[in-house]
Amino acid sequence: MDLLQLFRHAEDTQTFTAGQTIFDAGDTQRVPASGPGAVMYDVLQGEVEISLNNKTIETLAPGEIFGELSLVDQSPRSATATAKTDCLLAPVNERRFLFMVQETPYFAIHVMSVLAARLRRRTEEALR
Amino acid sequence: MDLLQLFRHAEDTQTFTAGQTIFDAGDTQRVPASGPGAVMYDVLQGEVEISLNNKTIETLAPGEIFGELSLVDQSPRSATATAKTDCLLAPVNERRFLFMVQETPYFAIHVMSVLAARLRRRTEEALR
Repeated sequence: MDLLQLFRHAEDTQTFTAGQTIFDAGDTQRVPASGPGAVMYDVLQGEVEISLNNKTIETLAPGEIFGELSLVDQSPRSATATAKTDCLLAPVNERRFLFMVQETPYFAIHVMSVLAARLRRRTEEALR
Repeated sequence: MDLLQLFRHAEDTQTFTAGQTIFDAGDTQRVPASGPGAVMYDVLQGEVEISLNNKTIETLAPGEIFGELSLVDQSPRSATATAKTDCLLAPVNERRFLFMVQETPYFAIHVMSVLAARLRRRTEEALR
């Protein structure tokens, strides 16, 4: 599924400069600009680093999503997201997310497959 | 979301006796009885143990799902599932899964929240 196409025309994109924190592990902060509740992000341009306790967990490229955990379960951020390069992000708030799940079932399947891939990798790491 | 209600009237339930393997880590086996492709299961009665390399990862009770990873990403089973007690399961094949995602968006959200919870736990374990 090409999320770049899906989010390319998002009107409320956000830019971050290299090194800037997008959110911190433990954050429960709400983002007024995108409505109530947590947002997930689709990377439109640049790279984003996901880390915890100063260990890099993932590096994300355009077309990839992050921050979906807090959107799905309303818990604090499980990891820190930092702009690795200057980047352009499309935030997806809960309202838009639920709308997309309803209108585009393959978006739901895609989010599940992203979660599944991360869960497989994490399980391998946890039991190594 | 009460998956027990959703699957209580499934017609093709399967029973396993205590100690019986439901699937093994690495399995790519297809399940002809439930149509082509991998199935996930909803626990209707009893308990199921999820393990890898003889370490228990989770113990699942009625209303909980497992096996959703292979359904979502068509990869081999990431862990072994064993009946901890005699149990009754509702298998959900790909066709039914896609149907439910389309017809019941909150089913999709529920599956995502299950994946999210497991991913959070695994991330904590991996980085402990």
